[in-house]
Amino acid sequence: MKKITLLGATGSIGIQTLEVIRQYPQLFSVHAFAFGKNVKKAIPLIREFQPKILVVQDMETKHELQQHYAVRTEILVGAAGMVEVSIDPETDVLVNAVMGSVGLDATIQAIEKKKQIAIANKETLVTAGHLVMALAQQHQVQLLPVDSEHSAIFQCLQGEKQQQVERIILTASGGSFRDTPREALENVTVEDALKHPNWNMGAKITIDSASMMNKGLEVIEAHWLFNIPYDKIDVILHKESIIHSMVEFQDRSIIAQLGNADMRIPIQYALTYPNRMPLQESDPVNFIELGKMHFQEMSFERFPCLEMAYQAGKEGGTMPAVLNAANEQAVALFLQKKISFLAIEKVILEMLNTHQSIQHPDLETIQAVDQETRLKAIQFVTR
Amino acid sequence: MKKITLLGATGSIGIQTLEVIRQYPQLFSVHAFAFGKNVKKAIPLIREFQPKILVVQDMETKHELQQHYAVRTEILVGAAGMVEVSIDPETDVLVNAVMGSVGLDATIQAIEKKKQIAIANKETLVTAGHLVMALAQQHQVQLLPVDSEHSAIFQCLQGEKQQQVERIILTASGGSFRDTPREALENVTVEDALKHPNWNMGAKITIDSASMMNKGLEVIEAHWLFNIPYDKIDVILHKESIIHSMVEFQDRSIIAQLGNADMRIPIQYALTYPNRMPLQESDPVNFIELGKMHFQEMSFERFPCLEMAYQAGKEGGTMPAVLNAANEQAVALFLQKKISFLAIEKVILEMLNTHQSIQHPDLETIQAVDQETRLKAIQFVTR
Repeated sequence: MKKITLLGATGSIGIQTLEVIRQYPQLFSVHAFAFGKNVKKAIPLIREFQPKILVVQDMETKHELQQHYAVRTEILVGAAGMVEVSIDPETDVLVNAVMGSVGLDATIQAIEKKKQIAIANKETLVTAGHLVMALAQQHQVQLLPVDSEHSAIFQCLQGEKQQQVERIILTASGGSFRDTPREALENVTVEDALKHPNWNMGAKITIDSASMMNKGLEVIEAHWLFNIPYDKIDVILHKESIIHSMVEFQDRSIIAQLGNADMRIPIQYALTYPNRMPLQESDPVNFIELGKMHFQEMSFERFPCLEMAYQAGKEGGTMPAVLNAANEQAVALFLQKKISFLAIEKVILEMLNTHQSIQHPDLETIQAVDQETRLKAIQFVTR
Repeated sequence: MKKITLLGATGSIGIQTLEVIRQYPQLFSVHAFAFGKNVKKAIPLIREFQPKILVVQDMETKHELQQHYAVRTEILVGAAGMVEVSIDPETDVLVNAVMGSVGLDATIQAIEKKKQIAIANKETLVTAGHLVMALAQQHQVQLLPVDSEHSAIFQCLQGEKQQQVERIILTASGGSFRDTPREALENVTVEDALKHPNWNMGAKITIDSASMMNKGLEVIEAHWLFNIPYDKIDVILHKESIIHSMVEFQDRSIIAQLGNADMRIPIQYALTYPNRMPLQESDPVNFIELGKMHFQEMSFERFPCLEMAYQAGKEGGTMPAVLNAANEQAVALFLQKKISFLAIEKVILEMLNTHQSIQHPDLETIQAVDQETRLKAIQFVTR
């Protein structure tokens, strides 16, 4: 029985993680779970999974749970609470599915305690990949990716040798605007951007898919997770999103992982690794119905955010933290309808151009740069 | 340094095996090679690779080599010669790329001597899969497939557990007549049948591709090699032949192996397994140029040979030997322009329908049934 601590329980990945756990009560139990403020969504999950410890974002939410819903479970608060449950001796596996840099501390401290870690938090690797991977190697901890692309690559690498990898090929659906010419992007609305052609996700990641920044962040993650230089990571457009990613080896053989768009597959794989278990209530890929798979070149002109991500990744140091913070702030402003869709890339470009990268930054430096960039981004758009 | 004994050196697979060996003289040397009668093709290869022992089909060829070409190498003759070099203590790896049932004895005896075996001889597994696999298990010998589809499946299974496999998906190019409606097959010529859309191979296998018997034989091979029931082996049409085959696991995740049509990839993999080495003078798959991959349903009505292969495989015993012998004889008659293309399937169907399968046959029984079927097939068409 694996005891799981889940950070981000009420988010899209969190909910699907609980679906996987629900199917295998003989294998998994929820030791602790953390969520923000979405009490309504959390209450039935608390009743069903009965975690030993809860973590919420603030005291107000804690009081609401205790007074309004008569929750008697121990409740911790904030980032410190997330760290506490993550390193709890009772925790076997940490599933880190919170959004944003708030997930970083918990991951780092869990690595130091040699926890098994399923990682769905992008910021951890994008902003602090050098620290996290060095620590993981030092403590002999394997980070199990939950993102479908990185899970695909991880699956393709099973039984293979890292030094025989020639190239990683990340596939991209193209996002909400894959069929929209660049000229027409000037006037797209928040509502347009939130219509992802292939699946439903949170707002932030849907916007990141439309701008291709999501793929850019994935490139940086892949660089760290699989210890591969940026010039050996390619991105191609594959609108059906059936091939989740591929690995080319030095003998020109390519191994690919395919599947329907169902995040339970990579989540379950991370939890059952190195085994595979039947996936409940699911259909196999129907290649006949699918009929065709398409591949198109990924253009840096069409998707400048992707180019910026490669450049920030190659530059290294604090540059990816700037990329990430600038993007988070710009996307938030776009979702608040304060800036246009194309202004997102302008904000990021300005933040990258005006930042002097600090190499080998520690955690404090990364967090300081993150905060500073967010403020600068707001100032830049409200000038 | 691996010392290789190569059976079928002047055939398509043999030549490409030598190309791989040529690239890595520090890794591989040719201990012995066997060929039939193609002295012209063999002479430069003998001079280049300088095998310690040669095997040829008959005394006449031996004398030609010695008298006309002054070859001083030891020369053995026939099936006994092939067995002798295969079990030679100096042989580390046996590459069995001869065509037809003549390759069977060598494989079986090499397994008993625990040789590493790269197998490109279809008949071995189709007709005697039950004997060969039981023997391989008993002597802890792994058979390394050279066929691109089986190599693909074998690569997809690396790092995975056999019992977690849900389904094997073999891809088929469709062969020379993939765009020809069944009605139009009545009058196709040998020349039409030999025009394979994707690559050049020997005549027999090109005809087998056109009739889909090649895929049928591959289904039976896959059944034995990967110990998987027939109802978990699917075949789909994929005309680009970029995906060489796929494995679906019980979590609905699919692992696929892809590559350009280059037999050196599976040959080299079998020789370097579990490692991969750079493939000389080769291009990566260009997905952008490719643009699309197509998938279509495989129809038993359109390709009755495939259905016959499934049925013979499920029936087991001597039935697959009948299938194989009837097909070899019928294809030979078609290539000699003695029967029509569609008569190939009629011959096979008749041979299957009039055979009473013997379960758990030994090698002598299989060989007797093979001979008997060939005679019966000739009698059937010359009635």
